[in-house]
Amino acid sequence: MASGKILVAQGGGPTAVINQSLVGVALEARRFHQIERVYGARHGVRGILDEDFLDLSQENTHNLELVAATPSSALGSTRDKPDEKYCAEIFKVLRAHRIEHFFYIGGNDSSDTVRIVSLEAQKAGYPLRAIHIPKTVDNDLVGNDHTPGFPSAARFVAQAFAGANLDNAALTGVYVGVVMGRHAGFLTAAAKMAQKFPDDGPHLVYLPERTFVLENFLMDVKTTYERYGRCVIAVSEGIHDASGTPIASLLKKDIEHDAHGNVQLSGTGALADLLCDEIKARLNIKRVRGDTFGYLQRSFLGCVSDVDQREAREVGEKAVQYAMWSKRDGSVAIRRNGLYSVDYHLQPLEAVAGKTRVMEDAFIAAGGNDVTAAFRAYLQPLLGSGMPDIHRLRAPQVEKILALKG
Amino acid sequence: MASGKILVAQGGGPTAVINQSLVGVALEARRFHQIERVYGARHGVRGILDEDFLDLSQENTHNLELVAATPSSALGSTRDKPDEKYCAEIFKVLRAHRIEHFFYIGGNDSSDTVRIVSLEAQKAGYPLRAIHIPKTVDNDLVGNDHTPGFPSAARFVAQAFAGANLDNAALTGVYVGVVMGRHAGFLTAAAKMAQKFPDDGPHLVYLPERTFVLENFLMDVKTTYERYGRCVIAVSEGIHDASGTPIASLLKKDIEHDAHGNVQLSGTGALADLLCDEIKARLNIKRVRGDTFGYLQRSFLGCVSDVDQREAREVGEKAVQYAMWSKRDGSVAIRRNGLYSVDYHLQPLEAVAGKTRVMEDAFIAAGGNDVTAAFRAYLQPLLGSGMPDIHRLRAPQVEKILALKG
Repeated sequence: MASGKILVAQGGGPTAVINQSLVGVALEARRFHQIERVYGARHGVRGILDEDFLDLSQENTHNLELVAATPSSALGSTRDKPDEKYCAEIFKVLRAHRIEHFFYIGGNDSSDTVRIVSLEAQKAGYPLRAIHIPKTVDNDLVGNDHTPGFPSAARFVAQAFAGANLDNAALTGVYVGVVMGRHAGFLTAAAKMAQKFPDDGPHLVYLPERTFVLENFLMDVKTTYERYGRCVIAVSEGIHDASGTPIASLLKKDIEHDAHGNVQLSGTGALADLLCDEIKARLNIKRVRGDTFGYLQRSFLGCVSDVDQREAREVGEKAVQYAMWSKRDGSVAIRRNGLYSVDYHLQPLEAVAGKTRVMEDAFIAAGGNDVTAAFRAYLQPLLGSGMPDIHRLRAPQVEKILALKG
Repeated sequence: MASGKILVAQGGGPTAVINQSLVGVALEARRFHQIERVYGARHGVRGILDEDFLDLSQENTHNLELVAATPSSALGSTRDKPDEKYCAEIFKVLRAHRIEHFFYIGGNDSSDTVRIVSLEAQKAGYPLRAIHIPKTVDNDLVGNDHTPGFPSAARFVAQAFAGANLDNAALTGVYVGVVMGRHAGFLTAAAKMAQKFPDDGPHLVYLPERTFVLENFLMDVKTTYERYGRCVIAVSEGIHDASGTPIASLLKKDIEHDAHGNVQLSGTGALADLLCDEIKARLNIKRVRGDTFGYLQRSFLGCVSDVDQREAREVGEKAVQYAMWSKRDGSVAIRRNGLYSVDYHLQPLEAVAGKTRVMEDAFIAAGGNDVTAAFRAYLQPLLGSGMPDIHRLRAPQVEKILALKG
C-alpha cells in the first residue's frame, strides 16, 4: 500500500462543483493514516514548478465544506500544458517534497497533462501514482456518462433559456443565446430543457457536431418566426463551416489562441452580434437580440445541481481510494447504472487523454437544428432537485365587442 | 365608491417579479364585490387597441400563485407609447367594455402612458381611475426608495459578479462585465455586493452618472492589475463621453432606436468587446475577457429576492385599494420606513412620469469608479434571504525546499 504525501491541483476552466472534488480528495485522504500530508498546488501544474503549496491537512473540515459549496477553483487554475522539460521540473519538486500521489482535477487537456506526468515518472523511475479526476462543463471526456461540472452548467443554461424564452414571449422578436462548447454541443443542447409548452423556445438549436450553413439557419429562423411570431435560438460558440472554420473566427480580425493551440471563443459577444446582424439584414426582422452567456454559465454563484455536487465529491473520494488500493494510474470515470444512479471506474489515462467526446447522433435531431427526446431523457436526472418551473395564465379570452360591431 | 370592470396590463421590459404585481391586482380585486370582472390586456396598451383581453376573474387562484412566481410578463408586454390618437382608440375600447379602472405595471415610459391616458380620460369626461404600478430593473423611478424588479436583478448581478470574480481569481486576467442601465447606474453598482474579501472584485465600477474617460479607465485598470495581478470591472451599458454620447454607439455602425427614441444598448456584446480590445491593445495584457449580462439579468429563472417578490405583490394590492378608496389617479410608490421595512403611498402621476432618477452622489465614490458604503447599506436588505456566500481556503503555505536551496 502506498504512503507519503499527496498533491492535488485544479486545471482548466473552473466549474460550479470543482471544489467538491478537491474537498473529496482532501477529506478522504485524511482517513488513510499512511498519508502524511495533503498538499494543494496553487494554479495547477504551474504551482508545482513554483513550489506554491497549501497544506490542506491543516484546513478545518467545516471550512473545507464551505469551500466545496463555492464555485470556481479554490486553488486557482492554469492553462499550462507541460512538455517533457516542464515535467522534469515537476519531478524535481515532487521528489524534494516526497510527494508520491498526484491528483489533477480537470478536462481533456488536464488528463493529457496527467498522462505525460505519469509517463515521465515511469521513465524517471519515480514512484508516482497519478490520477486524473474528471471535470468539464463541456461534457466531452470519453468513457464517461457525463462529467462533473456539466450538470450544473447545463442547469444554468436551462434556467437562462427558460427566462429568455419568457422574455421573448413578452416582447416578441428573435433571440440568439450563444453557449460554451468548442467541439461538443452538450451544453448548448441543455437549452432545450427550458422548453415546457410546445411553442416555448428554444425553437432552434445549433451544435458544433453539425456543419453550420448560414442560408439554412436563416431559412429555419424565417419559418419559426412566421409560425410563432417569435424565435428563440441556442447556438454553440463552436459552430463552424464545412471546412471546420469557426463561424466566430470568420468575423473576428484578431484571433487569439490559448496555450493548447485552441482559438479563443469565449469572452466575446462577436458571434451573437454577427448572427443578429445577418437576421436583421436578410430577414428584415426588427427586434433581434443576442446574448453570449460567457463565464456566467460556469461560475454563477447559486446555480448548482445537487446531483452534480454529490458526484463531484465522489470522484474526488474515489480518486484517493484508487490511488491507495489499486496499482495503476488512471482517470476516474462516471458510469450510469440506474435511473438514476451511477458508479465509478478507473479508466486508463491514454483512453481519455487528449480525446474529445462529442454528442451521439441519437441525441441530435435529423434536421441538425434540434435535439432528440433521448437527449432530454439523458440530461433530465442530472439537473438535480428543485429545478424551477414556469407557469402560464390559462384565463379565458374575453369576447371582442368593437371588432364584432366593426 | 367606484365599481365596474378593471383592466390590468404590463408594459416595458419584463422582470423577475412583475407577475407578482399582476397577481396582486387580480387577487385583491376579487375581494371587492363592486368589481364585476378583472381583465388582463395582452401586450400592454397594444392589447387594449386589439381588444385582446383575458378574463382573469376566471383564473384559478392556485395557478395565479404559480404565475406570480414565474419571471417575465405573463400577459406579454409592449414598447408602444400612446399619443392622443392612440388614447382616443383606447377610450373607445374601455367604454365599449365598461372598464373604469386601468392599472399599468411598468417603468418610466409606462408611467407616462398612464399619465396621458388619465389626462385624455379627463378631457373626454370618461370616469376612469388610472393607476401606475412601479416596475423596473433600472431602479430609476423618482419618489421611490426602490422599484420592484430591481432587487431581484441586483441579486442576479451580485451573484454573477461573485462567480466571475472567483473565475478571474482562478484564471487571472481582466474581466469586464457589462450591466443594464441606460441612465441610472443602480444595477451596475449592485455588482459591488459581490465583494467579500478586500481583494475581491469588482475592483472598478463605471456608472452612467459619471462621464467615462477612456484614458482614466485604462489607468485605473493598469493600477488595479499591477496591484492584484488581475482586475474585475463592472460597466454600465449606458456609459457615455462628455457630450453624452454612449460609448457603445461610438463603435456600433447601425444605431437602433426603440419607439421611445432610445438608442438600443442591450442585446449586443459590442461595448464589452470594445473595452476589452482597448485594454489588450493599450495595456498589453494578454487575458482579457468580456461578458454582457444581457437579458439574463432581468429574466433568469430561479434568481429572485423574496423581499422583491413580497413588495411587488403589495404594490399590486395597494393599487387596487387606492383605486377603490381614494379619489385620484396616481403612481404607487415604495417608501423605506425601517431597517428593513417599507410602506406605500400614492404619488401624482406627473411627479414620476417621464422622469428619471439617477444614483445619489452619496452612493458614488469620489473617484467616480466605485460605490460607497452607503450604497451597500442601502442595497443589502433588498437582496432578500438565502443569498449565497463564497468561501476561501485558509490552509497554511508549505515551506519551499528547492527555492531555498537554489
